[in-house]
Amino acid sequence: MRVHLGPDHDEHLAAAIVEGGGTLVPLHEAEALVWHGDVDGFPELPAGVRWVQLAFAGIEPFFRAGIIDPDRIWTNASGVYADNVAEYAVGALLVGLRQFHGSIAAAARPVQRWQKPVLDPQVRMLHGSTVAIVGCGGIGRAMIPRLRALGVDVVAVNYSGRPVEGASVTFPASRTAEVWTMADHFVVAAPATADTDRLVNAEALDAMPDTAWLVNVARGNLVDSDALVDALRGGKIAGAVLDVTDPEPLPDDHPLWTFDNVVITPHIANTRTGLNATLAPTVRENVARFIAGEQLIALVDPAAGY
Amino acid sequence: MRVHLGPDHDEHLAAAIVEGGGTLVPLHEAEALVWHGDVDGFPELPAGVRWVQLAFAGIEPFFRAGIIDPDRIWTNASGVYADNVAEYAVGALLVGLRQFHGSIAAAARPVQRWQKPVLDPQVRMLHGSTVAIVGCGGIGRAMIPRLRALGVDVVAVNYSGRPVEGASVTFPASRTAEVWTMADHFVVAAPATADTDRLVNAEALDAMPDTAWLVNVARGNLVDSDALVDALRGGKIAGAVLDVTDPEPLPDDHPLWTFDNVVITPHIANTRTGLNATLAPTVRENVARFIAGEQLIALVDPAAGY
Repeated sequence: MRVHLGPDHDEHLAAAIVEGGGTLVPLHEAEALVWHGDVDGFPELPAGVRWVQLAFAGIEPFFRAGIIDPDRIWTNASGVYADNVAEYAVGALLVGLRQFHGSIAAAARPVQRWQKPVLDPQVRMLHGSTVAIVGCGGIGRAMIPRLRALGVDVVAVNYSGRPVEGASVTFPASRTAEVWTMADHFVVAAPATADTDRLVNAEALDAMPDTAWLVNVARGNLVDSDALVDALRGGKIAGAVLDVTDPEPLPDDHPLWTFDNVVITPHIANTRTGLNATLAPTVRENVARFIAGEQLIALVDPAAGY
Repeated sequence: MRVHLGPDHDEHLAAAIVEGGGTLVPLHEAEALVWHGDVDGFPELPAGVRWVQLAFAGIEPFFRAGIIDPDRIWTNASGVYADNVAEYAVGALLVGLRQFHGSIAAAARPVQRWQKPVLDPQVRMLHGSTVAIVGCGGIGRAMIPRLRALGVDVVAVNYSGRPVEGASVTFPASRTAEVWTMADHFVVAAPATADTDRLVNAEALDAMPDTAWLVNVARGNLVDSDALVDALRGGKIAGAVLDVTDPEPLPDDHPLWTFDNVVITPHIANTRTGLNATLAPTVRENVARFIAGEQLIALVDPAAGY
């Protein structure tokens, strides 16, 4: 099987293609393309290319650019980085609940750095709480055993409402509005689609407990930034940990930077560091499956948009 | 059974004493004392007091003050707060490895707050790493299922070397020196005794991988603060998360505050908030056991010093 690797060479992915049974070829000779770059620079595809493997889990820029056509097989990296992002999301909940952020902020001052009387009463245990995972796909499923070991009860929301293993209850996306009052804390991990744009809006934030922490590991636009600023000003929630923002990167003068109870990480839940090494086993497996005529891992549904 | 509750009333503990079968009485009439205060103000004990329940897990100030005598039964709160502290320690590892601290520090600046190029390469996954729990008692045992669910391999050190369930290997305290080279990250959770004073010294820090994160949830003096400052200056370890310090509280001008890769929380892993509510079930159980003549939970060994 003839595979092109672009936009440039990568030792992990090249080895994976060969190990899966493929041969590295120039694009015009290729039956498949493994593309570990952004949407910028994505090439015009020769007719011979029947399958494209992308290196991202969230591929909406490729949809917006009209690149993903229904005539080819497309696979993404959905689930590949799930452990990595799930681990971040668990850490994010603990950062907020256990007042690590408050301690770090206090330490940045030259005086009164040891703020026990202020911080101690604000600490909350994750143990014994209920966390809703809104958009419980690969990342959410990877979170569940981690959260359960931490003594957390999980409420899942997915598109179909089909029960997610390990969750106490699973709701279909159509009933998301009910979930905001049912959990103590919320992790947003849904794909970015027209339906999930500003999923966490003013009504959602208003419905959450005022002790709730909100974590976003999906895409910035799933949380309405203006509504979040209002909710934080009004004390409607305890705080937020955001790895993705709207706009992104978040401008230096954005009001979200000014809150003590907002932690913003610069889209590093799924790090670029080691990304291709993490993706390599999936590429190897997919090349082997393609050769064997089997169904590939992480198929993109061009109709659904993810 | 006649129990005195001091230094003052507490609804959770008073209810626990009554539910366990006790009657609340003045100290001079008491057979047992439930003391939820510090060492300061600890009363002269009437001869009739045969058992004292303390509300701390680390009770070395009571030993130093000569309060703990071998003629009475003493119990502490060892293990009671284990879930709470274990949860903090897991969060502490994630704060460092996943660069939450770096993100929070960057956000504190007025410009260039979104520091993806700097922070992304510094992120490390907890998943797939080996964590040594040095002093693997109640807190360590509570950490193990949490860490395993996060994909971590655990090396335990305890006094006897008797295998700890869930750890890949358990070392006796006499072989602690070997452990510093065997793990990626280290959690110090040992009791404060003469043997554990400055357990993490210059040699230990030098032996650790330079990518190691060190977490201290035990007592400040288990880590040599001067050696830690030197190790951080020399890049001998990746960073430290300290809930306890030496001295404590850490003075505002202490050099440990100046490192970007040190997170200091003001002794809030085991919060005072809700402390007595957490302790209450143990007090109820111990009162009932004392009445029944059974062995109490969390017995202090006056000879061992914890």
